Amino acid sequence: MENISAGCVAVIFVNRRTADDDAGYHAAAQAMVEEAGRQPGFVGIHSVRATDGEGITISYWADEAAALAWRKNAEHAAIREQGRARWYEYYHLIVAEVRRDYQWHR
Amino acid sequence: MENISAGCVAVIFVNRRTADDDAGYHAAAQAMVEEAGRQPGFVGIHSVRATDGEGITISYWADEAAALAWRKNAEHAAIREQGRARWYEYYHLIVAEVRRDYQWHR
Repeated sequence: MENISAGCVAVIFVNRRTADDDAGYHAAAQAMVEEAGRQPGFVGIHSVRATDGEGITISYWADEAAALAWRKNAEHAAIREQGRARWYEYYHLIVAEVRRDYQWHR
Repeated sequence: MENISAGCVAVIFVNRRTADDDAGYHAAAQAMVEEAGRQPGFVGIHSVRATDGEGITISYWADEAAALAWRKNAEHAAIREQGRARWYEYYHLIVAEVRRDYQWHR
């Protein structure tokens, strides 16, 4: 996750899962992480889910064109449909352009 | 969380907690959320922590000046010192300018 830098596009996906405990969700989520990683312009991903069902996934892209291409990706679009039909109670998608970043390690 | 819109500044704080199980962390984290909410230009916050200690907190600010003022806030600076001394294994701070957002509810 060392390549996030000024000009990258951050796609922030804030969501809450439904009570639907379908194992299909986890396989699909993992497949989406892998598929995103294969796209041109993919920079990195941060993803956290709490036990109460709240989740935040942020994918980072080299530029706006790469982020838009990921939105239009056919597998991604198909999974989004399932997400709305079954897996998510709500979501909030926020697209932002990175200005600067700073890392600290113990 | 309805006021996140183009031009807002998102301060993305990605982190991993230490094994230090100090209850002081939770009180400090809650105090910081409340203190942030009292600052001029505060827009909202999204925060999720997984059981493995990974966390993402995103605070949103009306503009760059408000985000910088929060960084310089004295209480916030003091808590950051404690965070580095005790609570965090690592963190990655990413500042980004919001371009657009979209919400969906079941």
